[in-house]
Amino acid sequence: MAERGFPKAEFESRLARAQAAMAREGLDGLLVTTHPDVYYFTGFLTGFWESPTRPWFVLLPLAGAPVAVIPGIGAVLMAKTWVAEIRTWASPDLFDDGVSLLADTVKEVIGSGRIGIPDGHETHLRMPVADFERLKTACAPVGITGDAGIVRALRMIKSEAEVTKIETACAIAGRAFERVGEIARTGETLASVFRRFQMLCLEEGADQVRYLAGGAGPSGYADVISPASDTPLQEGDCLMLDTGLTRDGYFCDYDRNFAIGKPDALVRTAHEKLIEATHSGFAAARPGATAADLFHAMDKVLTGGEARTDNGRLGHGLGIQLTEWPSLIPADETVLEPGMVLTLEPGIETRDGNMLVHEENIVITENGARWLSPLQIPAIRVLAP
Amino acid sequence: MAERGFPKAEFESRLARAQAAMAREGLDGLLVTTHPDVYYFTGFLTGFWESPTRPWFVLLPLAGAPVAVIPGIGAVLMAKTWVAEIRTWASPDLFDDGVSLLADTVKEVIGSGRIGIPDGHETHLRMPVADFERLKTACAPVGITGDAGIVRALRMIKSEAEVTKIETACAIAGRAFERVGEIARTGETLASVFRRFQMLCLEEGADQVRYLAGGAGPSGYADVISPASDTPLQEGDCLMLDTGLTRDGYFCDYDRNFAIGKPDALVRTAHEKLIEATHSGFAAARPGATAADLFHAMDKVLTGGEARTDNGRLGHGLGIQLTEWPSLIPADETVLEPGMVLTLEPGIETRDGNMLVHEENIVITENGARWLSPLQIPAIRVLAP
Repeated sequence: MAERGFPKAEFESRLARAQAAMAREGLDGLLVTTHPDVYYFTGFLTGFWESPTRPWFVLLPLAGAPVAVIPGIGAVLMAKTWVAEIRTWASPDLFDDGVSLLADTVKEVIGSGRIGIPDGHETHLRMPVADFERLKTACAPVGITGDAGIVRALRMIKSEAEVTKIETACAIAGRAFERVGEIARTGETLASVFRRFQMLCLEEGADQVRYLAGGAGPSGYADVISPASDTPLQEGDCLMLDTGLTRDGYFCDYDRNFAIGKPDALVRTAHEKLIEATHSGFAAARPGATAADLFHAMDKVLTGGEARTDNGRLGHGLGIQLTEWPSLIPADETVLEPGMVLTLEPGIETRDGNMLVHEENIVITENGARWLSPLQIPAIRVLAP
Repeated sequence: MAERGFPKAEFESRLARAQAAMAREGLDGLLVTTHPDVYYFTGFLTGFWESPTRPWFVLLPLAGAPVAVIPGIGAVLMAKTWVAEIRTWASPDLFDDGVSLLADTVKEVIGSGRIGIPDGHETHLRMPVADFERLKTACAPVGITGDAGIVRALRMIKSEAEVTKIETACAIAGRAFERVGEIARTGETLASVFRRFQMLCLEEGADQVRYLAGGAGPSGYADVISPASDTPLQEGDCLMLDTGLTRDGYFCDYDRNFAIGKPDALVRTAHEKLIEATHSGFAAARPGATAADLFHAMDKVLTGGEARTDNGRLGHGLGIQLTEWPSLIPADETVLEPGMVLTLEPGIETRDGNMLVHEENIVITENGARWLSPLQIPAIRVLAP
């Protein structure tokens, strides 16, 4: 298995690029509050984010080293990262849960000017709104504004080490998908298949199975976000499993469709078309193309070019999050660059309000794209019923 | 296994209590944006929240039915809940990701006055900060303010059906903990034990293992939030596993300590004291007592009454979240009521900067408290090395 963590140079590089971007945007610092952003800049990796009780802050100044302003319970783990300056308070504090300590730190480290927080699409601020209002007042004369998309832009381009981690996650899922025949057969409930597929992912090396969606039916499934039902699989069903498992904090995100016995002709045809669309997206994926170009390359195969996006998109970025910038939709003109990791996720309607969705993961390289997930053949995989 | 979901009457009751609280606080509606709050009021349950791309909104008016304002990808699943009014947009929309639709809905449904959002401790707003600013402008003349803790107060008191779900999760974890001897022995790495313990939880009926922490060493562990290391277990180690698994959207959250072979005398004594402290907390847990009372009841056993809270607390609420209000700390004067589900989580220092932590889950009843997790005996459980 690939090694854990990153060398210090990786974090120094991330910080340097953040600081160059701050200089361009006229910002004197960045403040991050969520697991993905904190992990990206510090290497602080814990499942403890599952507890919403405590806020966590990392301040990145325009010059100099990052400062972690965190609950005391995190001090031991943060001290194992490359972050040297760690300030803590006894959290939860019902009267002042880190706000004064953070404001004092901002004033001391930044002095004056403005710091940015990620405030655009796909972001949120992981602290109470009332405390954010207090913070804005307490930080004066330092102002708080948006980060002009700096953090999103940095995280969108993966280093080689990041790509390796995503590829490792993809390989784990690939081995689990190869074993679906062990757990899915006629009479098994979807709930049982979900449970046992997670076990396969763990057995094959996942740290955690953060996301699992799926569906099953003779002509596909009505949506791709419902929890598993207790309906038993039937001969002729098309079963889909879509997993976002993590390894060392990085996700894969792709799915596989299976036929339980002989597939419906419509399902077989739909699957072939989805693989064709995926290849079309892959062929279009190279530096200089846009996210919209990939959408259109796949949409042309799927619909002849109707460009409908009622229920979503035909792919997206991934990395520390299951889904990241950009979106493969007509409106997203993000220009692809080497190091961007994307999903290609075409969907196609079948009948009775059902659909099939296929998904692969790729990385943009200097010369085009490279598959990170093990590419499927056009014929849907048939499992013994 | 217990059945899935809740009867419609449960959601009607939750809404009615929310509306009574809005009337008391002078609010004309509530707006919720996070998985726990949306699930609480609607029953909308999906792992899709793992994707941060799209915002989701549910508006609860002072009178009348809830209105879901959500991405189109969620329409099929939301239509299976008790929510009748569902408005959707094609998300992600890079120019207007639900803001106009939500603002128009607020103006139409609420008309004038103020709506509240959860804004206090342990909350966050799950939408981009820049969009929230746009929303506040676009909602006029309806104002947006804090919810005066209404949602927290409602969710803190569990219905019988909610307690049953938590108890089911506790029982699943209990069966997995009984089997730790199958996976933990000298030479196994903590990473392997973490992976296989998640598999045991799934095999015993967990929907997902959202949280797993732990540690191991001859005198305990230095913190309780680090990811698993590749260090092999050694004879004499004290191994701790702390899991927050979910079943139908509700968590358990408790841990178990094990000795790999003969335990250190200090570990044995510490474990006995932790069980004594847990019983002391349990005895104090009854309607009318405060969260602080439970802290002091345990702290008296642990330290003689030093009341230090450097690294945390001695327990907390749980339910749809791994951790919920209140906190068992000296400052939390929350008065206990029947239906509150709590963890009792005493910790004790051993040596070399290490500690032991024990945790159980209880529910407050009319007459005192009831264990939801299977209570441990004072002697630490010894596994064959």
